[in-house]
Amino acid sequence: MAGPKQKTRRPKAEAPKGFRDWMGAELEARAAMLARVTEVYRRYGFDPLETPAIETVEALGKFLPDVDRPNEGVFAFQDDDETWLALRYDLTAPLARFYAQNQLHLPTPYRRYAVGPVWRNEKPGPGRFRQFYQCDADTVGTPTVAADAETCAMLADALEAVGVARGDYLVRINNRKVLNGVLEAIGLGDPEADAAARGAVSRAVDKLDRLGPDGVRLLLGEGRKDESGDFTKGAGLSAERVEIVMGFVGALRDDASATLGALRDLVGRTRAGAEGVAELDEIATLLDAQGYGPDRVRLDPSVVRGLGYYTGPVYEAELTFEILDDEGRKRQFGSVAGGGRYDDLVKRFTGQATPATGVSVGVDRLLSALRAIGRLEADSAGPVVVTVMDRARMADYQRMVAELRGAGVRAEVFLGGGNLGKQMKYADRRGSGVAVIMGEDEAARGVVQLKDLALGARLAAEIETNEAWKAQPAQIEAPRGELVAAVRAMLARAGG
Amino acid sequence: MAGPKQKTRRPKAEAPKGFRDWMGAELEARAAMLARVTEVYRRYGFDPLETPAIETVEALGKFLPDVDRPNEGVFAFQDDDETWLALRYDLTAPLARFYAQNQLHLPTPYRRYAVGPVWRNEKPGPGRFRQFYQCDADTVGTPTVAADAETCAMLADALEAVGVARGDYLVRINNRKVLNGVLEAIGLGDPEADAAARGAVSRAVDKLDRLGPDGVRLLLGEGRKDESGDFTKGAGLSAERVEIVMGFVGALRDDASATLGALRDLVGRTRAGAEGVAELDEIATLLDAQGYGPDRVRLDPSVVRGLGYYTGPVYEAELTFEILDDEGRKRQFGSVAGGGRYDDLVKRFTGQATPATGVSVGVDRLLSALRAIGRLEADSAGPVVVTVMDRARMADYQRMVAELRGAGVRAEVFLGGGNLGKQMKYADRRGSGVAVIMGEDEAARGVVQLKDLALGARLAAEIETNEAWKAQPAQIEAPRGELVAAVRAMLARAGG
Repeated sequence: MAGPKQKTRRPKAEAPKGFRDWMGAELEARAAMLARVTEVYRRYGFDPLETPAIETVEALGKFLPDVDRPNEGVFAFQDDDETWLALRYDLTAPLARFYAQNQLHLPTPYRRYAVGPVWRNEKPGPGRFRQFYQCDADTVGTPTVAADAETCAMLADALEAVGVARGDYLVRINNRKVLNGVLEAIGLGDPEADAAARGAVSRAVDKLDRLGPDGVRLLLGEGRKDESGDFTKGAGLSAERVEIVMGFVGALRDDASATLGALRDLVGRTRAGAEGVAELDEIATLLDAQGYGPDRVRLDPSVVRGLGYYTGPVYEAELTFEILDDEGRKRQFGSVAGGGRYDDLVKRFTGQATPATGVSVGVDRLLSALRAIGRLEADSAGPVVVTVMDRARMADYQRMVAELRGAGVRAEVFLGGGNLGKQMKYADRRGSGVAVIMGEDEAARGVVQLKDLALGARLAAEIETNEAWKAQPAQIEAPRGELVAAVRAMLARAGG
Repeated sequence: MAGPKQKTRRPKAEAPKGFRDWMGAELEARAAMLARVTEVYRRYGFDPLETPAIETVEALGKFLPDVDRPNEGVFAFQDDDETWLALRYDLTAPLARFYAQNQLHLPTPYRRYAVGPVWRNEKPGPGRFRQFYQCDADTVGTPTVAADAETCAMLADALEAVGVARGDYLVRINNRKVLNGVLEAIGLGDPEADAAARGAVSRAVDKLDRLGPDGVRLLLGEGRKDESGDFTKGAGLSAERVEIVMGFVGALRDDASATLGALRDLVGRTRAGAEGVAELDEIATLLDAQGYGPDRVRLDPSVVRGLGYYTGPVYEAELTFEILDDEGRKRQFGSVAGGGRYDDLVKRFTGQATPATGVSVGVDRLLSALRAIGRLEADSAGPVVVTVMDRARMADYQRMVAELRGAGVRAEVFLGGGNLGKQMKYADRRGSGVAVIMGEDEAARGVVQLKDLALGARLAAEIETNEAWKAQPAQIEAPRGELVAAVRAMLARAGG
């Protein structure tokens, strides 16, 4: 309890910095969207998994307790026995821990999906929160790129399931091995000795969307000065080698076999490159067999994906329609999901290589995309509000809502204070379709008044409604015994 | 990254102490149960709210940063700006913060439901976890006990919605004010001066279920020695006063009006008592009007509820059927939900009294109750497994699952390694209903083999199945073009 000195100070009613609340229709829209995505995951044979929010820092792996407070990027704290714990920062690291822990009891391959919040201890910014949702599907324990192909097909299905039209999205696939082949071809073949230069090349390539080919060329060569005058040192490649890399990121052709041909020309002589091209070829064949053509899924050598742990195919789902950005300029909506093959995450625990591939959907990004195209779903119909005209009749009003609820109609008695006007304002705020009124006079005559609030709202919004008003009066009287039927009829009218 | 000395040490693949993973059918059963409960909440007019997992310690309120590490009972950690943060330990404290923060933009009364994990930094034990789910519904901003009555009715509806039969549960209602009247009647009327003795009486009464009337009598008087020989000091009441308290906890009669009469006799002369009895009377009347009789909802003066913050009606949902405990003894399943009126939680932030009432369902308790009565729901049907007889035909197999998924059938190609036997074992482990087989011979003849795995399992389980076997062969051949229809027919047969 508070000491005496704190007695007078009130706590601030605020969510912590970088955290937000979700309510009502927005929350329902998210739930509806996630239900559709996970239904697709399920149809592809994935089973649900929920790991706890907290893992040991050791298991999360990115961070180790060699400093007093290892909370760089994660929310970390020490358990009573001094073990460092942290909130998960994604859903993949916990999956690796879970799989390593339960391997013997799981089918092989193990397909799981997971939905839930993750936490990042980062500086919050506009639209940038420290808790956000992810929605992942991973296949653990199989090396075949058929699993990668399936994941790409599934991603396309999931986007269509939530309401993104075919033609408004593209799943783009590349292969880290092809990039490794390119690095080998330009003399940076040793992952350890050439680590710095390889990293610089990868980062440069990853910026193609943002900087365009010329910007990437500068970053591959000497370096680039940005608009603010800041200089980023480049990878220092010779002009000839820059063009090999640019040939790679620009290897996208009109169809998969032409793209594959261009890649083969570039890196087919390197071992990693040949392997990577063969895998992409297999993926393209399998997707084609399932009917996923280049209008939905496409090989695209410009996809790199930031995460260091990918070891093979990488993929990204991009929404191709345009929206207006904060400055009112048109731009493509961009990436909403991505993933790839990671063969070493489980090995950290077991010492055995365990091939795995999977995708993560950025839930908030996808939700804001659906908002932009008007495809948010939410069953946000407010409750029927039974008004309180006479407090002594509270039992009668409760009986009415009990009847309505029993018939599956969302309903409540107004439990606040105030006159009919205030009660109507409440009903309006709730988005109610119907208000029920029964005062002394109605009770004596055995009737109720039903106010059509949806119609009322339309009438207020439209001009040319005199005729509609006459044809559909906004208030009707019904016998008390027909309350449920009359309310239903009015709600149906509102819905039509 | 790890320093050189850690390079050889592998992290332990274990969830932290007191945390667990949820997977497959169990997770689906929980989701199905929560969907049913929240559907009832919705029907009563409640809207969803999701607050973040993390709140400031100041807002959570039970703990204050006057020690270096205020993590007693909660998982707490310091933000970059030194603010103490903690994982929420329930869903009510965040609601109070949210309401205080957004009051002006919310309807009054504000009805919200919330579902999600909460965290307690406590010693874990068998079946006792440090992360668990709660499922709450609260009405904020109205003083009328009609809100309490509704919450009790809703609790009854929710229990029936998840499959608890009428007669197998009871929602019991009491009122803290009546207990306060009892305390006044025995000379402990001052909440501050008599705090210690009042606490001792409340704790004694709360143990009625566990210790029976004689045990409570001892705790109200001099004290009680338990089986282990430990002595608990009592409240030190005189014999006469002990009997007044026992009269209160034993005031349950056959019907509400008789119970109310008994309470009126005991505490009707005290102000708190009279007010409490009048409120219970109103609740009973309203519930009766809605058709919730004593077979579902009942006034019961023995309900106390531990939490100090309740200020009026308190209620508890109890499952009355018997289960076997760990020692094989029969006992009632007991409480699965509880709540009550708390008028001071929002006041902490705003300084203004804000009446509120609400209920919290213990999700794991209710889930294990449903397990005990065989009412767990889960759509745990495994996927149709298309086996891989010939790796060169992978594209054909992928085409088959694409057709099945397109028709809404859960399906996957086997992506592991191994012969048909191993693939059948995998299908079995996944709970698959049907396996599809197409080798060279079938491909040449344009057919597929379908194996009825559900039937196979039944055949293996039953003895007298020779006839069934003949009537329903466990494997049939179908034209490749009729794959979807044939699989559907086989799945339908399995379901029948």
